[in-house]
Amino acid sequence: MKKIKVTIWNEFRHESQESDAGAYIRSFYPDGMHAVIAKNIAADNLDIRCATLNQPEQGLPEALLQDTEVLLWWGHAAHKEVKDTLVDRIQKRVQAGMGLIVLHSGHFSKIFKRMMGSSCSLRWRDVGEKERLWCVDPSHPIAQGVPETFMLPYSEMYGEPFAIPDDGKVVYMSWYEGGNVFRSGVCFQRELGKIFYFAPGHETYPIYHDENVCKIISNAVYWAAPAKIFPERETHEKVPTEKITSVKPEPKL
Amino acid sequence: MKKIKVTIWNEFRHESQESDAGAYIRSFYPDGMHAVIAKNIAADNLDIRCATLNQPEQGLPEALLQDTEVLLWWGHAAHKEVKDTLVDRIQKRVQAGMGLIVLHSGHFSKIFKRMMGSSCSLRWRDVGEKERLWCVDPSHPIAQGVPETFMLPYSEMYGEPFAIPDDGKVVYMSWYEGGNVFRSGVCFQRELGKIFYFAPGHETYPIYHDENVCKIISNAVYWAAPAKIFPERETHEKVPTEKITSVKPEPKL
Amino acid sequence: MKKIKVTIWNEFRHESQESDAGAYIRSFYPDGMHAVIAKNIAADNLDIRCATLNQPEQGLPEALLQDTEVLLWWGHAAHKEVKDTLVDRIQKRVQAGMGLIVLHSGHFSKIFKRMMGSSCSLRWRDVGEKERLWCVDPSHPIAQGVPETFMLPYSEMYGEPFAIPDDGKVVYMSWYEGGNVFRSGVCFQRELGKIFYFAPGHETYPIYHDENVCKIISNAVYWAAPAKIFPERETHEKVPTEKITSVKPEPKL
Amino acid sequence: MKKIKVTIWNEFRHESQESDAGAYIRSFYPDGMHAVIAKNIAADNLDIRCATLNQPEQGLPEALLQDTEVLLWWGHAAHKEVKDTLVDRIQKRVQAGMGLIVLHSGHFSKIFKRMMGSSCSLRWRDVGEKERLWCVDPSHPIAQGVPETFMLPYSEMYGEPFAIPDDGKVVYMSWYEGGNVFRSGVCFQRELGKIFYFAPGHETYPIYHDENVCKIISNAVYWAAPAKIFPERETHEKVPTEKITSVKPEPKL
Repeated sequence: MKKIKVTIWNEFRHESQESDAGAYIRSFYPDGMHAVIAKNIAADNLDIRCATLNQPEQGLPEALLQDTEVLLWWGHAAHKEVKDTLVDRIQKRVQAGMGLIVLHSGHFSKIFKRMMGSSCSLRWRDVGEKERLWCVDPSHPIAQGVPETFMLPYSEMYGEPFAIPDDGKVVYMSWYEGGNVFRSGVCFQRELGKIFYFAPGHETYPIYHDENVCKIISNAVYWAAPAKIFPERETHEKVPTEKITSVKPEPKL
Repeated sequence: MKKIKVTIWNEFRHESQESDAGAYIRSFYPDGMHAVIAKNIAADNLDIRCATLNQPEQGLPEALLQDTEVLLWWGHAAHKEVKDTLVDRIQKRVQAGMGLIVLHSGHFSKIFKRMMGSSCSLRWRDVGEKERLWCVDPSHPIAQGVPETFMLPYSEMYGEPFAIPDDGKVVYMSWYEGGNVFRSGVCFQRELGKIFYFAPGHETYPIYHDENVCKIISNAVYWAAPAKIFPERETHEKVPTEKITSVKPEPKL
Repeated sequence: MKKIKVTIWNEFRHESQESDAGAYIRSFYPDGMHAVIAKNIAADNLDIRCATLNQPEQGLPEALLQDTEVLLWWGHAAHKEVKDTLVDRIQKRVQAGMGLIVLHSGHFSKIFKRMMGSSCSLRWRDVGEKERLWCVDPSHPIAQGVPETFMLPYSEMYGEPFAIPDDGKVVYMSWYEGGNVFRSGVCFQRELGKIFYFAPGHETYPIYHDENVCKIISNAVYWAAPAKIFPERETHEKVPTEKITSVKPEPKL
Repeated sequence: MKKIKVTIWNEFRHESQESDAGAYIRSFYPDGMHAVIAKNIAADNLDIRCATLNQPEQGLPEALLQDTEVLLWWGHAAHKEVKDTLVDRIQKRVQAGMGLIVLHSGHFSKIFKRMMGSSCSLRWRDVGEKERLWCVDPSHPIAQGVPETFMLPYSEMYGEPFAIPDDGKVVYMSWYEGGNVFRSGVCFQRELGKIFYFAPGHETYPIYHDENVCKIISNAVYWAAPAKIFPERETHEKVPTEKITSVKPEPKL
């Protein structure tokens, strides 16, 4: 069986901090959010690797990136630390076909902003309010096996206006107790690669233990996996396919 | 009368080179392509300024950028010389509402690639073949006053696949004598700013003297001009609009 | 001053019924919802006419339709009574450039379903709950002069999934007290005509007296107004623009 | 192995006419175009049935339609003969998830116009000129195994402007010898069903014998096949998921 090669990249800073807040987060995610996501989407046809910011080459040496078919990205406090050269490499890999799944505060990651072109800004508020998700397209592969609506008891609010391009195909929208709405599950294609942004996942709530959240992320992995990665193409088409009879004017000087 | 503040930025290198090629280009564009475009789109309600790469701050000091409502961009040989900090500033201005019109080889400019997220690669061939443009949406503001089809006797071929996002609203498509096709006039919105990419304009043909090409560029200026530029917004909505009754769980350590 | 020719079509049945319910609705809309909308969007550059289902030719004789540049449509109980031939005529007029603004329960009108191709079904509940609208694109012409969020104290709930095509450009999204979300203000283009769907407007609440709702409808009228109505085109292009050298094979029988 | 249930519907009039023209067409398609398409896309995991207009219930009795997962449609001379009630039934089936592949002159079929809302008009010319197709998105499932460009020596010209909605995802564009261009392979989704329009296929040329054309149609069948057909949903959500505290105002009469 051919396995999809998945890499879960996590900033892994909130879970590592030596503080009461860090300890609280570790009560949900003792080995980091990436470890829980990896466990909850595990399947025979997935080959899942984890990577974190503090590792050599910020966790994504070229060999691993070139061996990745779907990349998941969770970042927040250290967006600025991610090197532009790494962002360049990831962008190029997405353009060649690699799937990219951007989670929660990754909306402000360098790589997501790079792929979108807009600022990806949004309203936000973290008071632990209730979030309810609604499926907008029940036929979408990412929504299969998930109830049309489900609830997260405590969540960080992400609200409209969300500065993303108009080609975002909305699969999920969220309702928040405090009165906000959000396009919380949105698909894009950039060149040959697919991108899925999914909003839930604040580090101080056990959201990646939620069955529906994990089913959506799992579905997104299969949806974003490329049939193949495309090699670079020669774009200079010197010889036309059809005969040209125009005669290019000679420069007269 | 309130005038739209337009800045035409031109790399201005091909026209300046000391060579036979340069002399030939100057036979069409003695003062640069920007000068011809400025003359051909001039109107009472436009306040047009020109800027070139060799000027101080690469032609776009912050004061001028902040005073620009629509920016036209022609670049080719010196894309890499444009500073990333300038690209950052232009991107931010587009996100706030400034219109951006990207011409010809500007498809590979840093600013266009930045706004698109994809590589913006395309097939190309420069043998002076015939190009014919077709309007895809006759009701679009950019197409008003232009025949549904018109011809350029000599042009550089730009062909599909053109690596741009799917939200590109196609207004013009091109036919080339050598057998290629291209989405040659495409609209985007990125955050609060409008973007128009228009393919014709190779420096070795007098394309910016063409009446239809100039009418399209002129139309695009009016289409891309913002009703207003938006100031930065506070996105932290501390106080919700609706009452929250959920009680955020207290960290238990 | 050239005025935009606007026709507000209203089914005008709920307001006309002889019942307590009818009397209650008439307490908001003594002369019908169309009369209140007409009054609240009135402007010097609009020439507004009203039309109702019980009038001759169902309110839209061909002469009036051909004289209409923007048509507003409110229907609910009598969708089925609207003649298919009238729907055909309206569709053709939209395709030629006329703007169409579909209000509230008009989502299930024959004309809106005809323009969309999908069923336009949605979740719904009428218990008079609170609705809050959020602007998704603050730069959109339809959102100018309206606060980024505003509230309607009592409204009928319309919720996702809303079966509309993916080219719907979302300008407003709604939050409902009962936990639902909805794409409540959405733009489309069909051929040469613009369409705006706007959800608020249940007949048992005084929603068309709301300042923000009326500002949005007014903005939509200006946005949807065509620069011109296009005549029918000859689509048989017998003589090609470029020379054909292929020789069509002669049938050999 | 679960097979995809495919029905190829063909008007089957041109191939049946008693005339020299009919005899010529039969030299390519002795048993109709549907028979050649069926043969050329045949595969172990497809269960292919053919249907024609002259059959009982115009070839698509409800039992067959309800047993169809992907419907192919070729029509031209007899569009008007197709009953509106049949169009209603097909539309409903697409909305529930059935894939629909519309071929060539089917652009003017009742069912395609019904799904699009626009007129689907296009320029055309039948002089047997050369057509060249270009892939716009090499990663699209419909383009796999097909060269990025290929040529049809004789074809009917279909040219822009093509009156289709903006959500058409373009997979193929065509170049014609006579100077025209066309979005010749376009994907849509309408509610839960996928739609692919593919232009080549004029009856007087042996186009459905072309290997690339058939590969594209075959790919489209797999792409359009639904994971499941959705049953009708109850859309009245009487009981809200979240608690409502608003008190609906009592009518005061």
